[in-house]
Amino acid sequence: MSVQTSKKIHAIVPAGGAGTRLWPLSRRSHPKFLLDLTGSGKSLLQETVERLWPLSETVTVVTGAAHVGEVKEQLEGLGVRVLVEPTPRDSMAAIGYATYVIREEYGAEAVVGSFAADHVIENIQAFERAVNKAVGGASAGYLTTIGIAPTEPSTAFGYIEPSADEVAPGVMKVSRFVEKPDAQTASEYVTQGYLWNAGMFIAQAGTITAALVHLLPQMDSTLSLIAADGMQQELWDSLQRIAIDYALAEPLAAKGHVAVVRADNDLGWSDVGDFAAVARLGGAGEPALRIGAEGSVHLSGDGVPPRFIAVVGVPGVVIAETADSMLVTDLNHAQSVKEVTDWLRLNREDLL
Amino acid sequence: MSVQTSKKIHAIVPAGGAGTRLWPLSRRSHPKFLLDLTGSGKSLLQETVERLWPLSETVTVVTGAAHVGEVKEQLEGLGVRVLVEPTPRDSMAAIGYATYVIREEYGAEAVVGSFAADHVIENIQAFERAVNKAVGGASAGYLTTIGIAPTEPSTAFGYIEPSADEVAPGVMKVSRFVEKPDAQTASEYVTQGYLWNAGMFIAQAGTITAALVHLLPQMDSTLSLIAADGMQQELWDSLQRIAIDYALAEPLAAKGHVAVVRADNDLGWSDVGDFAAVARLGGAGEPALRIGAEGSVHLSGDGVPPRFIAVVGVPGVVIAETADSMLVTDLNHAQSVKEVTDWLRLNREDLL
Repeated sequence: MSVQTSKKIHAIVPAGGAGTRLWPLSRRSHPKFLLDLTGSGKSLLQETVERLWPLSETVTVVTGAAHVGEVKEQLEGLGVRVLVEPTPRDSMAAIGYATYVIREEYGAEAVVGSFAADHVIENIQAFERAVNKAVGGASAGYLTTIGIAPTEPSTAFGYIEPSADEVAPGVMKVSRFVEKPDAQTASEYVTQGYLWNAGMFIAQAGTITAALVHLLPQMDSTLSLIAADGMQQELWDSLQRIAIDYALAEPLAAKGHVAVVRADNDLGWSDVGDFAAVARLGGAGEPALRIGAEGSVHLSGDGVPPRFIAVVGVPGVVIAETADSMLVTDLNHAQSVKEVTDWLRLNREDLL
Repeated sequence: MSVQTSKKIHAIVPAGGAGTRLWPLSRRSHPKFLLDLTGSGKSLLQETVERLWPLSETVTVVTGAAHVGEVKEQLEGLGVRVLVEPTPRDSMAAIGYATYVIREEYGAEAVVGSFAADHVIENIQAFERAVNKAVGGASAGYLTTIGIAPTEPSTAFGYIEPSADEVAPGVMKVSRFVEKPDAQTASEYVTQGYLWNAGMFIAQAGTITAALVHLLPQMDSTLSLIAADGMQQELWDSLQRIAIDYALAEPLAAKGHVAVVRADNDLGWSDVGDFAAVARLGGAGEPALRIGAEGSVHLSGDGVPPRFIAVVGVPGVVIAETADSMLVTDLNHAQSVKEVTDWLRLNREDLL
């Protein structure tokens, strides 16, 4: 195949996770990344792939056996390789699988970049600038992430503490990663210049595999075998379930081997984490009639016949319906929708 | 037929009106009186007829041509006479029609009692006591109404000012009827002992017909003809459209010919005027899951497949759905639902 240029990456898109705050639209059987949540007519996954192609030599989507049919259908003609996880093994295994396959084909110096399948980035040019900087960090041997300059002290994201130590143009060494904070701590983080962790990782394939040799040697040997000989479910099932943040990002940061690109505020990044985000992104419809109900929105899944919808006296109400379920909440409680899926997990798993 | 006893009345139930504050459940094609709004398994019309039979020698329902099929179906086997209005001519014509038919058969001294088809009375014994008193007023020649002792300064009802002049045991002469007041005036009315006008009228048939001879002579002659010879649409269509309140109650009160029975607070009367009333009466379902959504209710019409409904963070929300429409509001805005039907009248008459 072609040789890796200095600019292009090998994009990896782990397509998993349900998006529990978007129930009932987002379901185990039909997760968030398969949904059109921006009103574009394309799913988040399709938008992610289209956003990555101009920066990428190859694009690899890693998804579960349950969704591979729909994923392939949505990505038909987009030139994407789809790797299938026989069982869910969390993000380190998913991203690792693609990384080892890419190393096998393009060598240890190939730069891989992993990006969530269900996030939105509105400013493509700003995104390309950030990725190009990150490739500089990756080429210097760092696991490089793109941190988002916070627009509010959100408690929904983990944060990244950058240092003043520049390892490549516009790329700073990371002091540490921190978990989702409480409101007070989040305010302090924002004041101190911490960045949102948006789950983007750019690195040479060899940087990741070399780190796994030390940190998770069994995962290294298993993924090496699978990349060389093809998937073997028995091997795959033996992999440790662990997120890339805990497996790689935090331990490497502790050793000073992680770097971050501070992304401009105007990147327009969103994790589309709840219905309030969907409403902001224009992915929700308006009820036909709103009286004293400013900002109220309506979303419906497949198989819901159109009806006339009137909302009276409840501003910002959110109505989300599918053939088997309906949720009514408001924009201020968008984060609380997780309590519904928590309840369903115990009482009505069939509706998850 | 049998002779009227001193206790029994000839009940008249005008079954018309849509109930605009109960949209989308209550529709022109399927009005409020046909709905089960108390969770009893019976419609308001069926409950009204069952409530009246123990007090009545005959029960006559007057309804429009559009609803006669469903009305007859609901009342099958209940021994009710159904009179059909070829076109809507308001309550004076509807109640008058039945009154003239009853006078034709039972004579001018027969006591008729008209009761709305879409109200609820929970305490049957208190209701029977009130009607028995009203029969005393009717027998003394008065157009007698049953006034409800207010439980709050409601602005949704007209009020009745009783005098201190007792015309029969427990029956006071009425000073005047007043229209639906503003909040300030309603408080004054309640303080001054005014009663809610619940639209119940009890009188000898001859009291009503004699009054019409003077007040609306053309209606008297037309209804006399129809009662003697049967319905003739041309005659019916010529009738003036006027409510019984304006046609009879107010002018007769001005002459001192109207009396009122003050009904005990415990009558449990409700005009089931909005979704808040339906919720109080137990006629609304609960969503399957409510989180921070105390008092929220769900109602669905015919042809709506059951779904799992979750409400999060919006207390007292009301979800009412039919096959073609859905309303979301809350109990505090139950009266505002009329604004929806006002809008539909101008923009989407097909949904009324």
